[in-house]
Amino acid sequence: MRIAICPGSFDPVTNGHIDIFERASKLFDKLIVAVFHNPNKQPLFSMEERVAMLRASIAQISNVEVDCFSGLLTDYVRSRNTTVIIRGLRALSDFEYEFQRALLLKKLDPDMETIFMMTSNEYSFVSSSGVKELARFGGDVTELVPKPVEDQLIKRLRKI
Amino acid sequence: MRIAICPGSFDPVTNGHIDIFERASKLFDKLIVAVFHNPNKQPLFSMEERVAMLRASIAQISNVEVDCFSGLLTDYVRSRNTTVIIRGLRALSDFEYEFQRALLLKKLDPDMETIFMMTSNEYSFVSSSGVKELARFGGDVTELVPKPVEDQLIKRLRKI
Amino acid sequence: MRIAICPGSFDPVTNGHIDIFERASKLFDKLIVAVFHNPNKQPLFSMEERVAMLRASIAQISNVEVDCFSGLLTDYVRSRNTTVIIRGLRALSDFEYEFQRALLLKKLDPDMETIFMMTSNEYSFVSSSGVKELARFGGDVTELVPKPVEDQLIKRLRKI
Amino acid sequence: MRIAICPGSFDPVTNGHIDIFERASKLFDKLIVAVFHNPNKQPLFSMEERVAMLRASIAQISNVEVDCFSGLLTDYVRSRNTTVIIRGLRALSDFEYEFQRALLLKKLDPDMETIFMMTSNEYSFVSSSGVKELARFGGDVTELVPKPVEDQLIKRLRKI
Amino acid sequence: MRIAICPGSFDPVTNGHIDIFERASKLFDKLIVAVFHNPNKQPLFSMEERVAMLRASIAQISNVEVDCFSGLLTDYVRSRNTTVIIRGLRALSDFEYEFQRALLLKKLDPDMETIFMMTSNEYSFVSSSGVKELARFGGDVTELVPKPVEDQLIKRLRKI
Amino acid sequence: MRIAICPGSFDPVTNGHIDIFERASKLFDKLIVAVFHNPNKQPLFSMEERVAMLRASIAQISNVEVDCFSGLLTDYVRSRNTTVIIRGLRALSDFEYEFQRALLLKKLDPDMETIFMMTSNEYSFVSSSGVKELARFGGDVTELVPKPVEDQLIKRLRKI
Repeated sequence: MRIAICPGSFDPVTNGHIDIFERASKLFDKLIVAVFHNPNKQPLFSMEERVAMLRASIAQISNVEVDCFSGLLTDYVRSRNTTVIIRGLRALSDFEYEFQRALLLKKLDPDMETIFMMTSNEYSFVSSSGVKELARFGGDVTELVPKPVEDQLIKRLRKI
Repeated sequence: MRIAICPGSFDPVTNGHIDIFERASKLFDKLIVAVFHNPNKQPLFSMEERVAMLRASIAQISNVEVDCFSGLLTDYVRSRNTTVIIRGLRALSDFEYEFQRALLLKKLDPDMETIFMMTSNEYSFVSSSGVKELARFGGDVTELVPKPVEDQLIKRLRKI
Repeated sequence: MRIAICPGSFDPVTNGHIDIFERASKLFDKLIVAVFHNPNKQPLFSMEERVAMLRASIAQISNVEVDCFSGLLTDYVRSRNTTVIIRGLRALSDFEYEFQRALLLKKLDPDMETIFMMTSNEYSFVSSSGVKELARFGGDVTELVPKPVEDQLIKRLRKI
Repeated sequence: MRIAICPGSFDPVTNGHIDIFERASKLFDKLIVAVFHNPNKQPLFSMEERVAMLRASIAQISNVEVDCFSGLLTDYVRSRNTTVIIRGLRALSDFEYEFQRALLLKKLDPDMETIFMMTSNEYSFVSSSGVKELARFGGDVTELVPKPVEDQLIKRLRKI
Repeated sequence: MRIAICPGSFDPVTNGHIDIFERASKLFDKLIVAVFHNPNKQPLFSMEERVAMLRASIAQISNVEVDCFSGLLTDYVRSRNTTVIIRGLRALSDFEYEFQRALLLKKLDPDMETIFMMTSNEYSFVSSSGVKELARFGGDVTELVPKPVEDQLIKRLRKI
Repeated sequence: MRIAICPGSFDPVTNGHIDIFERASKLFDKLIVAVFHNPNKQPLFSMEERVAMLRASIAQISNVEVDCFSGLLTDYVRSRNTTVIIRGLRALSDFEYEFQRALLLKKLDPDMETIFMMTSNEYSFVSSSGVKELARFGGDVTELVPKPVEDQLIKRLRKI
């Protein structure tokens, strides 16, 4: 069985991520969306909230599993019996960062294989941080994030 | 009357900004330089100080108004009876960020039109953050910012 | 009257160009689309054909004129009583080339002002050369170029 | 059976290409390396020579087939019962070109899925054109191309 | 005597830096590696620790001196009787930042000359921040930093 | 004696090149400007003309020699008893191309060291091809090239 891992912070998941999940899930027998717990960062949503929003947002894709991990990505990928990592690319800055990251992963574990898919151009300007900033100022995020995320963003950020 | 909005933090305004204002003011009947109040950031200068420095620095351009706003840029632009936004471009990182921002604005309000002008090459290396860092270390900013800004930078940063 | 010039080879005009024309025509009282005659290049379509396809494609925009020129762009712009040039930007390579070009124009004539508009993301992958290559291999260009151009492309390239 | 197509001119194949083939062949049940016949270009090596060099260079990879095609890539990919295209990325200019190409393919056929793999950094500076230029000036290409290609390059270019 | 300065934070020094030092030391009679004390940043290692790790890591290069400075780089470079600054370049983001920085230095002191050397491709993905993040998650940094740095990173970050 | 080689086509030399020569000549005991003879390209000016224009343009710099070469750059550099190559960088496309070139040279001869200097921003938009195109259309190149080049450009291109 061919398995691929799509790691990220997903704080929160956007429609750009969902688009990548849908397309990537067709290329492999199983896709694992893995939420990264970074003890050095303060996300807007807790790990449990991020996982719950992801599960609610991808219920329609049958071969996708949502999981979470901490520590080294290479260790996690090995523990799930694969060596394939999928990353979405939007623009130049993504590309440079992802290039360095993929080379570093390969240095740590030469079997690791990062493959890239380009975000559809209708979502090329959507990022988790942009969505949060927009919601903070009262902007409409309906077309940028899945419905369960929109509800949470409004609850969380309108309070502020 | 054709009106254009040039939004920014202007913390503080630099000679690169002034160059864009001068050139943009010739393309439209009225140019509004709009200082953005971001409650999530801590600027070096208060909104009142930034507006005052801007007014003192552009007194020579007759059709420019200095204003300030908070909330969504698209709402502010509409409230000023225009849909035209002007942004200066310096380099690659600017370009990527501005590209995503312009697409997001168009998604929020399809009538919004962002137009770009390239910073003159004599100011291509000048940024608000670079000017503050330079002043902090005692560097000479005379040729990088308008005189009213230079005076304020020295007062503020030499104290530290 | 505020006039802007949009120069190019337009060999042939694409829907990405038309999108820029429509949006730019709202920013100025008159927009002149100026086809450049370069004696050192061999276009697919003659100057007359390119002008005719442009005229047939923009009949719906009232304040746009189609013209042609040879020689220095700065001389032509002056002869039309303006100093404003509009260019569409798609991607990074465009940006670098356009940046150098705008600086050179300003060196030749300091009053020249190049302003940039970003191609809508639905046309960000459309170029005249890409459209010609696609048509050559029998691909469907219906959604990429105006109808009058599609007809000419099929006539011209299917013969080859 | 999951099939992926790796299209290109391969004029000639380099060690950078071989590295991508080896890594991509592990991700799919079958990898088809498809040499593109472009009637508008004059390659150094004929289609037959390019295919022969490819076959001699990848004999060690069991699930790779070498094929050739002309016309539209999307038609060819469909004819091989897949929708998956693999492209190697080296650097920025590659990225921009590939980005536009992937979006155009998706416009022509929305099911087409282009995935990208990054060339190992030991081959990041190797290109078919660079290898040909180097061989032309008598440079040693031993570590840049497979042995069968090196022999052909010497035969062909030393005559000139 | 031709002297060049290689300034940086070196928090901590990596094998990519060492590679640049070794190559730059051959181009000049003396190379001064100058650790910058930035009162506005909180480094992982103190100035004394960074200098000590540098000294322990470059003992094998005879014409390199390790020094530290605060304040304006141009003042420091002048105080060491030279005008030559060396910077390593890795990737695009480096390039843009370094380009602006070199132009600013030249504006402050027109005699300043920044020269650039490209990081060997085997270290192109190594950065001080990446190394710290990797060590924090228990990754193996043996091949990325000199031995004295590896020891300190383990002591410091495993405690956290 | 420290020697550096600055190779190029110089068809023709521009003020941007001269700026690099002047600055590089201060960093080394001797600078050799080496005109490359590429049998596969058709330059506007012959090798003899390019060398003559270079000599007339740099007479004021005492430690610069003009030479020419064909074949592999690494062989030529070795024959002049050095391993140091200097290249000017202008913009992004330059950077990518130069990056690949420097890595390839190092692969061919690991002792080769390419160092980069950034073109002053007042010449950042000047290229040999741009200057030729401008002269062809009757533009004024006085501030872009040395006087001996301007004279030759007018003679050569006004005839056409």
